[in-house]
Amino acid sequence: MFKTTVTPRFGDVDGLKHVNNIVPAIWFEQARNPLFEIFVPDFDLSYEKWNLIMVRTEFDFVGQMYLGMDVEIRSYISKIGNSSFTMYQEAWQNGKLAVKGKAVAVHYDFVNQKSVPIPDSIREKLMEHFIEGID
Amino acid sequence: MFKTTVTPRFGDVDGLKHVNNIVPAIWFEQARNPLFEIFVPDFDLSYEKWNLIMVRTEFDFVGQMYLGMDVEIRSYISKIGNSSFTMYQEAWQNGKLAVKGKAVAVHYDFVNQKSVPIPDSIREKLMEHFIEGID
Amino acid sequence: MFKTTVTPRFGDVDGLKHVNNIVPAIWFEQARNPLFEIFVPDFDLSYEKWNLIMVRTEFDFVGQMYLGMDVEIRSYISKIGNSSFTMYQEAWQNGKLAVKGKAVAVHYDFVNQKSVPIPDSIREKLMEHFIEGID
Amino acid sequence: MFKTTVTPRFGDVDGLKHVNNIVPAIWFEQARNPLFEIFVPDFDLSYEKWNLIMVRTEFDFVGQMYLGMDVEIRSYISKIGNSSFTMYQEAWQNGKLAVKGKAVAVHYDFVNQKSVPIPDSIREKLMEHFIEGID
Repeated sequence: MFKTTVTPRFGDVDGLKHVNNIVPAIWFEQARNPLFEIFVPDFDLSYEKWNLIMVRTEFDFVGQMYLGMDVEIRSYISKIGNSSFTMYQEAWQNGKLAVKGKAVAVHYDFVNQKSVPIPDSIREKLMEHFIEGID
Repeated sequence: MFKTTVTPRFGDVDGLKHVNNIVPAIWFEQARNPLFEIFVPDFDLSYEKWNLIMVRTEFDFVGQMYLGMDVEIRSYISKIGNSSFTMYQEAWQNGKLAVKGKAVAVHYDFVNQKSVPIPDSIREKLMEHFIEGID
Repeated sequence: MFKTTVTPRFGDVDGLKHVNNIVPAIWFEQARNPLFEIFVPDFDLSYEKWNLIMVRTEFDFVGQMYLGMDVEIRSYISKIGNSSFTMYQEAWQNGKLAVKGKAVAVHYDFVNQKSVPIPDSIREKLMEHFIEGID
Repeated sequence: MFKTTVTPRFGDVDGLKHVNNIVPAIWFEQARNPLFEIFVPDFDLSYEKWNLIMVRTEFDFVGQMYLGMDVEIRSYISKIGNSSFTMYQEAWQNGKLAVKGKAVAVHYDFVNQKSVPIPDSIREKLMEHFIEGID
């Protein structure tokens, strides 16, 4: 599991004075950096080097978040297939779970535009962050 | 069905030169305005008047989108329950479907913090945008 | 002058129920598309083709904007130098000016990382959108 | 001076593989939280309690920022007037200055919609973060 701390900003809060539902999507993306780093250690964004494509995201909003307190994002791997894998993420504020999300990415060859099996070396590193019983 | 046209901006495109996966979430939120208007005609954001809360969103990225061409967002109602309903949305660019998404909202009383049945008058208006066979 | 119409979305409005001050920056960037198109007609984002770099932006917030009504962005050229030029932009909602902004861009060679004089053909097209007395 | 550390996310980087020019505006807003806290310690967003309004922001992009490395935001007070004050902010990545910005805010009474002098107690706290020679 990776922990990432983020700080709500003034404009993240919408007219209902809660963090807007788009914001956790942004925080979760940021919190995926350590997972991306397993696949592309130098964050090289060329088609030759970058090898991940997002195919699905989902978010369950189970609580409200507010301005004035940091939020902890917890990121896990919940499923590993042949070429795809699922990240499971949670946003916690003030000891309460506010958002649960999943993101499915595919190990992808951008030059030839096709999915590629996840190598064992990467699979092992992903498994260090595995959480049981989610997907 | 509601149609909303949006224009990708320079910063919507990420390092892979495709529209970043957060952006459709933003466009879909914007495209929900006409649906929100059915519930809160004057867009009054007070707890006394606003009566919708988002409980879930999901996005399937089935194609890529690019800078330089407008995107059409199509918004439907795919399910209506007692107090909750599901919006189904698609993003089309250059004649191709790029993203499919669902958003579940609950008709909600913010003052008393509880869900409220959807009145028949609103139910009828939602039904005008109903799409069969999605949810 | 270019006119671009944008629609405030729910999450653009912050806790004070006004459009947050980051949002006009986003709208102005989107409204610069037709100006970018003069420099890079096919929006090719490669270092060989893209030839503009932003060096400065500024925003004066002179009025409030709200959810529920479209906003018109008016974009002009207010100054053309040897290799740089200034865009002047305004956001209008409900007949009232809400934001005035300037953005300075440089005609730039990304491969050799140096500024490049603006060719006369482009200069002429920019002049069609010139506004007197701003810069 | 306040120091705030932020992490570029995948989608913050635009098609030119640099952090898009909207992003520092977002980071600077987040980094203003400790300054806002001086004015509204509990971050209460009601018109009765919140007492700041943004009237101007400006950004000079003097260097590029990239994915894969944290960014330090340094926030200062550069000017204090009767009811308004100026924040000066810098974004540093990898030991290099990338963005300099100013934001002018007014101490404001939202109920009566008028500016209000900054009290001495707040003025003293702001002075702790004062930087000479900027504005």
